[in-house]
Amino acid sequence: MKVSVVGAAGMIGRKLVERLASDGAIAGTRVSSARLIDAIAPSTPPACSFPVACQTIDIAAPRAGSMILEERPDVIFLLASVVSGEAEADFDKGYHVNLDGTRALFDAIRQAHDASRGAFRPRVVFTSSIAVFGAPFPEEIDDEFFATPLTSYGTQKAICELLLSDYSRRRFFEGVGVRLPTICVRPGAPNRAASGFFSSIIREPLAGKEPILPVADSVRHYHASPRSAVSFLLHAASLDLTRLGARRNLTMPGLSVTVAEQIEALRAVAGDVAIGRIKRRPDETIERIVAGWPRRFNAERASSLGFKAETDFKDIIRAYIEDEHVALAA
Amino acid sequence: MKVSVVGAAGMIGRKLVERLASDGAIAGTRVSSARLIDAIAPSTPPACSFPVACQTIDIAAPRAGSMILEERPDVIFLLASVVSGEAEADFDKGYHVNLDGTRALFDAIRQAHDASRGAFRPRVVFTSSIAVFGAPFPEEIDDEFFATPLTSYGTQKAICELLLSDYSRRRFFEGVGVRLPTICVRPGAPNRAASGFFSSIIREPLAGKEPILPVADSVRHYHASPRSAVSFLLHAASLDLTRLGARRNLTMPGLSVTVAEQIEALRAVAGDVAIGRIKRRPDETIERIVAGWPRRFNAERASSLGFKAETDFKDIIRAYIEDEHVALAA
Repeated sequence: MKVSVVGAAGMIGRKLVERLASDGAIAGTRVSSARLIDAIAPSTPPACSFPVACQTIDIAAPRAGSMILEERPDVIFLLASVVSGEAEADFDKGYHVNLDGTRALFDAIRQAHDASRGAFRPRVVFTSSIAVFGAPFPEEIDDEFFATPLTSYGTQKAICELLLSDYSRRRFFEGVGVRLPTICVRPGAPNRAASGFFSSIIREPLAGKEPILPVADSVRHYHASPRSAVSFLLHAASLDLTRLGARRNLTMPGLSVTVAEQIEALRAVAGDVAIGRIKRRPDETIERIVAGWPRRFNAERASSLGFKAETDFKDIIRAYIEDEHVALAA
Repeated sequence: MKVSVVGAAGMIGRKLVERLASDGAIAGTRVSSARLIDAIAPSTPPACSFPVACQTIDIAAPRAGSMILEERPDVIFLLASVVSGEAEADFDKGYHVNLDGTRALFDAIRQAHDASRGAFRPRVVFTSSIAVFGAPFPEEIDDEFFATPLTSYGTQKAICELLLSDYSRRRFFEGVGVRLPTICVRPGAPNRAASGFFSSIIREPLAGKEPILPVADSVRHYHASPRSAVSFLLHAASLDLTRLGARRNLTMPGLSVTVAEQIEALRAVAGDVAIGRIKRRPDETIERIVAGWPRRFNAERASSLGFKAETDFKDIIRAYIEDEHVALAA
């Protein structure tokens, strides 16, 4: 099985590649080669049983499609995106990369299908986002709730979901759209995303640092670990598509918790000293932004198709500690 | 008020222009000029109190945007579309006109906004379609049901709805998306659209002809007259947008009736002889296509915003007879 990972240098992309390298297979089928593509130079995982080629190219560049498809991959993981904040700040760049870049790749696959080399209908696993939903919401969002995004990023993801479904219906490829919950705990330095505190209130105390919590403890949100995100993508790559039908985009299972529940889980895993490091500094701007975000999903369809996420926030914290080799601060 | 009608040569476009010419105003505001644009040469209505300019250009042509916007219209009615069957048969043409053409116009408005001529934020009334919905459905579709189109046409309309919302949220223009029910009774010759029989079983008997009914009498569908469609567009052009919020696309009210109820209404209006002309010839292909169509909507939101449609199919037939000056066949 030949695999292409588009957006291989991002946080989820790197973890996906590490997992592919360590498993050497997807759902029992051996990976024979991988091509890693990103606008930032991707790096080859250290121990890997299959050949890996790395290429640095923007998904929206004219030749990106033919480079991604050169070896006619069986599975394409499409993770490349301009992130939410940047897509909002730079309208043209967001649409250029997140919409035109994705569509150009979809069209390149379609055109490869018609070529003299014969049928070509790869599995395309597309990472979408719960940002396709915009307030007001019901308390719990079900699988048939409509997409009314309130950001350009969410709009671009919702449009790509529609394209993915139509191109799949037309049999140009076999698309599966994976709507990721907010990923928590994100490793690395704090970033300035409005959602950053959901991770930093866990990650920073474990490192002996003092994160700022800008919202009330009662704020509820919907999370999955990076480990679960990778498992979603791999499951989508091997899913029996006869069970999917025409509706190709799935809200992933996740864990709906309040900030208070996050903090209690941190106490259970790392003790009172850790949670004492969290500094409460209410920030009206962030509170207003977060108030427009979904709080809870009933991801029944994805669950029935075998997608699995954590059901206890302590497991999300433990996954972070294990996967990032965190030595707990005293 | 300066008005542009893009798609002015189509059936709804022509009726909209006739209504503008006869009213001379939209919701009490005088129309000062109109520009009619279509890929097929539009024609000026006979009696008209304001100057009308006609232009023949494809909406997807490079200069279309600047031609449409030349006089900085206050209201743009965007009706131009490749129809459903053609968008399905010609993938590239459908996306080129219905998606790229619409987006190019949206971008032309955005760029005109930034130009030295000052702020430009016209009302954009976009005609969408209930084709954004795809089976399976609940028996009645509410305003928050998700869009999972099963045609490329429906996909293109759903994508344009998302763009309309995002461009409106960004304050590039003031968009309102109007999801039309199936338009019935369509005037003119029978066409080969799968939905054509809904109109022909009314129109043809009134003209003394014998239409074919290819589905069971129990088939239920969702209709509005051309007259209502025009009233929807005009109401959308003058609607108080503070009542609309961020959710810019509205399923229009319509009338959900079975074929049997259509036929009974025809009997009430035109008698037993008329309905005796309908020939039942079940067609499995058409039955299968129609089975995937929505049957009933609860268009609560549009109704609460003042959009109105017929509530009795006899009124739909009478509107056809009046508007098309039909002399009933003996």
